[in-house]
Amino acid sequence: MAQTPVLIVLAGGASSRMWPIREKSLLRFSTEPLLVSQLRRYQALGFEEAVVVANPENVNDIIGLTAQIRPMTVRVVVQAEPKGMGDALLQAAPALPNRPNTSIYVTQVHDVVDDQLHSDMLKAFQADAEASYIAGYEREDYFPGGYLIVSPSGRITGIIEKPGPDNKPSNLVSIVAHIHNDATRLMDALRAEYAKAITTDDHYERAMDRLMKDHPFRVVPYRGAWNALKYPWNVLDVMNYYLSKIQGQHVSESAYIAKTATLVGDVYIGERAKVFPGAAVVGPAYIGADTIVGNNALVRSSMVLNHCEVGFSTEVARSYVADHCSMHACRVLDSVFSPGVNFSAGCTTANLRIDRGTVASLVKGQKVDSGRDKLGAIIGADAFIAVDVMTMPGVKIGTRAQIGPGTHVHRDVLNGQRVYVKQETVVVDETEN
Amino acid sequence: MAQTPVLIVLAGGASSRMWPIREKSLLRFSTEPLLVSQLRRYQALGFEEAVVVANPENVNDIIGLTAQIRPMTVRVVVQAEPKGMGDALLQAAPALPNRPNTSIYVTQVHDVVDDQLHSDMLKAFQADAEASYIAGYEREDYFPGGYLIVSPSGRITGIIEKPGPDNKPSNLVSIVAHIHNDATRLMDALRAEYAKAITTDDHYERAMDRLMKDHPFRVVPYRGAWNALKYPWNVLDVMNYYLSKIQGQHVSESAYIAKTATLVGDVYIGERAKVFPGAAVVGPAYIGADTIVGNNALVRSSMVLNHCEVGFSTEVARSYVADHCSMHACRVLDSVFSPGVNFSAGCTTANLRIDRGTVASLVKGQKVDSGRDKLGAIIGADAFIAVDVMTMPGVKIGTRAQIGPGTHVHRDVLNGQRVYVKQETVVVDETEN
Amino acid sequence: MAQTPVLIVLAGGASSRMWPIREKSLLRFSTEPLLVSQLRRYQALGFEEAVVVANPENVNDIIGLTAQIRPMTVRVVVQAEPKGMGDALLQAAPALPNRPNTSIYVTQVHDVVDDQLHSDMLKAFQADAEASYIAGYEREDYFPGGYLIVSPSGRITGIIEKPGPDNKPSNLVSIVAHIHNDATRLMDALRAEYAKAITTDDHYERAMDRLMKDHPFRVVPYRGAWNALKYPWNVLDVMNYYLSKIQGQHVSESAYIAKTATLVGDVYIGERAKVFPGAAVVGPAYIGADTIVGNNALVRSSMVLNHCEVGFSTEVARSYVADHCSMHACRVLDSVFSPGVNFSAGCTTANLRIDRGTVASLVKGQKVDSGRDKLGAIIGADAFIAVDVMTMPGVKIGTRAQIGPGTHVHRDVLNGQRVYVKQETVVVDETEN
Repeated sequence: MAQTPVLIVLAGGASSRMWPIREKSLLRFSTEPLLVSQLRRYQALGFEEAVVVANPENVNDIIGLTAQIRPMTVRVVVQAEPKGMGDALLQAAPALPNRPNTSIYVTQVHDVVDDQLHSDMLKAFQADAEASYIAGYEREDYFPGGYLIVSPSGRITGIIEKPGPDNKPSNLVSIVAHIHNDATRLMDALRAEYAKAITTDDHYERAMDRLMKDHPFRVVPYRGAWNALKYPWNVLDVMNYYLSKIQGQHVSESAYIAKTATLVGDVYIGERAKVFPGAAVVGPAYIGADTIVGNNALVRSSMVLNHCEVGFSTEVARSYVADHCSMHACRVLDSVFSPGVNFSAGCTTANLRIDRGTVASLVKGQKVDSGRDKLGAIIGADAFIAVDVMTMPGVKIGTRAQIGPGTHVHRDVLNGQRVYVKQETVVVDETEN
Repeated sequence: MAQTPVLIVLAGGASSRMWPIREKSLLRFSTEPLLVSQLRRYQALGFEEAVVVANPENVNDIIGLTAQIRPMTVRVVVQAEPKGMGDALLQAAPALPNRPNTSIYVTQVHDVVDDQLHSDMLKAFQADAEASYIAGYEREDYFPGGYLIVSPSGRITGIIEKPGPDNKPSNLVSIVAHIHNDATRLMDALRAEYAKAITTDDHYERAMDRLMKDHPFRVVPYRGAWNALKYPWNVLDVMNYYLSKIQGQHVSESAYIAKTATLVGDVYIGERAKVFPGAAVVGPAYIGADTIVGNNALVRSSMVLNHCEVGFSTEVARSYVADHCSMHACRVLDSVFSPGVNFSAGCTTANLRIDRGTVASLVKGQKVDSGRDKLGAIIGADAFIAVDVMTMPGVKIGTRAQIGPGTHVHRDVLNGQRVYVKQETVVVDETEN
Repeated sequence: MAQTPVLIVLAGGASSRMWPIREKSLLRFSTEPLLVSQLRRYQALGFEEAVVVANPENVNDIIGLTAQIRPMTVRVVVQAEPKGMGDALLQAAPALPNRPNTSIYVTQVHDVVDDQLHSDMLKAFQADAEASYIAGYEREDYFPGGYLIVSPSGRITGIIEKPGPDNKPSNLVSIVAHIHNDATRLMDALRAEYAKAITTDDHYERAMDRLMKDHPFRVVPYRGAWNALKYPWNVLDVMNYYLSKIQGQHVSESAYIAKTATLVGDVYIGERAKVFPGAAVVGPAYIGADTIVGNNALVRSSMVLNHCEVGFSTEVARSYVADHCSMHACRVLDSVFSPGVNFSAGCTTANLRIDRGTVASLVKGQKVDSGRDKLGAIIGADAFIAVDVMTMPGVKIGTRAQIGPGTHVHRDVLNGQRVYVKQETVVVDETEN
């Protein structure tokens, strides 16, 4: 049986499209950051060695996190500049074991899929280690990604980016879950591409194209879940994936559940969490350690991480709320809150367009359709939202922004901006009546 | 014993004063439309034949509805134009049975009274079929309607319209609940009036005036409930009448009532309805089929018909809510919602004037005092009310209207209008601080 | 043993700094007005005779109240004009018993302290009736009050007003809890000061200064609670003091507590009060007679006096609410409501500055730091606050003021003023779309 490939986890990509959400690798979808959670899953599947490609910003955190993973051997390398996936792999090369015919399994930290995909990839490789493998996500409808061109014999002859709905060469979309049976050969091909004077940063794709001519690449089809953290609202997709893994009711012994509180369905209640009288947690739902669900509050289909206060009469529905957020008598709907957000009494994240169309959001100046019927707000770390603020569907609010009382937030608010409304009032003295 | 009169139900009157509420006959105050409910009550009292006078808009619906009534024989005729009550009765004439001395009982679908009135009318007629009868609503205070002039012998000698508080000829106000012991004689008298060149449309009243000279008309006094659908807020009066008929708690077997939910007093819970944890339904109250009363919501002294969502923490008090309405974390107070209204989070129907006076509303351009200390909003079918809207007391919102987030609705909004508010905000960048 | 001093309670001081709160003596912090509560405590400590100094506005109320105190002998005198504490004491002089060597204990109605202070004062005086005594509040940090200058032998040689943090002569701040062992001598000294042509109104202090030269004044140190009603937010401090005296749960027999309602901690529920389903009262908390805590409402760390309505889903937290207030689906946080306030649905008293600094408030035109991290609104009697109003931290609203719907209250509103907002809306007809 072929040796298990060395896992390469790409975790150094820029997150600018995720603004105001920071650092995908470190996002927690239960007790552990995504990167740790992913590595543990790989380990359980039999991977023994991994190389994580970090960037200068997250490398220290990543080193700290990967130190926890045992017994897997995890090395961390840094990609100094965002020069594409080929460059990332070249940074990983020196960290690979010095064995002949080392095979590698290239994955991205922010692709969240079922274990089935990875085990099918491993099985295919172990059955025939002479080939390389690419996961092909089967879907009928068109998706603007890379499509696999597959010969009748099952060999992949090329990948075509965004062919358009009428020119799909197959129903197989490429996921970055690639087994290369000879890392050295791949690295050589990559170096050759970087030596060329081509300015596009698709070196990895070009290298694969060349390799496919001489070496067999085979498809491993996949029909399970695939959630990628590309846009900030994808946090909700990944959250839902993790929520779907909660089975039954787990209530920590140190948690307090009031007699008139209600837990429904699949629910996780963390250490020292408190669910107060009249409150309800409706699964699938995750309540983190030291979080309080106040009197008559409702949390449903959501994650509220640690040290949060879900205050009196607050509703958190289909939302992701990170650590140390404070909410009070408000409505958090289909939204993503970074750590430390204060969302005051009377606030609402409006989540539905009047015309009931899908909600769009600006990403790096471009309007992007989220494809979601319901989408609330995406709020950055330590933002302070004063009383009676409403945010329009799809709006984003930056880190440390401050929104004054009664403001209707129709547009994105940048990091650190203060927005407030000046209301004109009329004052009449009694004597004038 | 005299034969039971043929019932004539006038259901063809225009509903323009009811805007934005449509078609009084079809309004449902429990499981059945008002017309059906009224016909069933007449049938239970012994009426065997009825003629319903429809208008061109509602005739098809009415034919459909009356087909359900068995074993009563119901014929439907159409009054092509709104030419008054006399004309309506003339349209009914050909549908009357071809019997000598046919007597008729003239009523209006939108007058909701106790059975007592009808049974007293029948009893009086059966005791002496030589006379005709008019119901006289006894009340001490002045009411701007038609007052009966009654001779010492108990014979009605005339009806005087709005005599003014100082000129009341009696304490008996005429209700349209009239038994004419000879339909043919009435129809002849009506035709004579229409042959005249008088332009006012009080032909029926004039015909009665003439008949009273030669034929005995007697009063049947009545002191029970009388609720007429004249203005849209009268829907609340008729609702209260129907609510008062709920006795005890009726919970459908297919309904779900959470353990921590509360039902208080006289309450009807329809098929497959759900009352979620912490919610309360406080009687008298009617919850229709497939309607959800969400976590910690409160419905009291209200009707919420079928397929509605009373969302988390919503309060519906003293209100009528038709099918397929969606409400969420809002306050619906003393209001009437047509089918399909969306009332979003944070919305309130203000129901109390600061000066605590009675609430007025515009009807066909005229300010009409509703006489109510508390009155919220009247909202037409499929209107969309976005988050944090407040409506001022007595405001009306038309069919398919759209009210943008945060709007204060001070004036009526016409059918299909969009109203929104543009808030001026100030944006300050951190660096400017 | 020396005779117990005659108690002098100063209750005639002006309350203008307390605006819009009126008449400190009459504020109720449980079932009885502050003055009555204070007199009962003195009586329990052994005082048998008291003189209350009223002003022309409150004298009638005070006469009515003091009539209830038995068996203590209470005389009421009036200070016609606010001419200082010395003048107040001179008004009391004729009401003192005609005994040689009458001693007096001078206190203020609005200083709320532990019984310990008074019993320590009495003990000291009874141990040595040859001296006079002044309570000295021990505190390490600087407080802008009068500091006692104490000789090594323990004799007070002077009082210095606001010496500044670097010039404190001791850690002992003077509280107005003074035993003068010879009232006649004090009154003579006061008259001498009023005979002088000095325009400042510190006659009492000057008289004490002179007396200290020839007669021993001793300090009685005190480290317990001291809450003075100086600014309106001090009502919350005094409330907290009284709340801390509630031990366990006292529920009147005539009160109704719904099965799904929750009482937590030290809670007092008055006669005929009702706590509805899903509501919670979290101690320390006081619910007065005939007050309703509606469905799913929450009252915590608050006093809600008699005949109030805490409506559906309302939160009252750390607040003082006087009689006959009406609240509905709103948030009353860190606030003081005078009797008869109407606080409508959707209203919030914002209580936290965005910069998390302490909240300031205007007092007689001057900005005063309340020293509180959280402070909501102070609202005068019979003010009407319409739906969806938010008040900014520290704002005050005058008696009978009216605040229109949706108003953001950023500035104090005077007695009887009406404030409203005119929102500009855009109306689009369907046909224009």
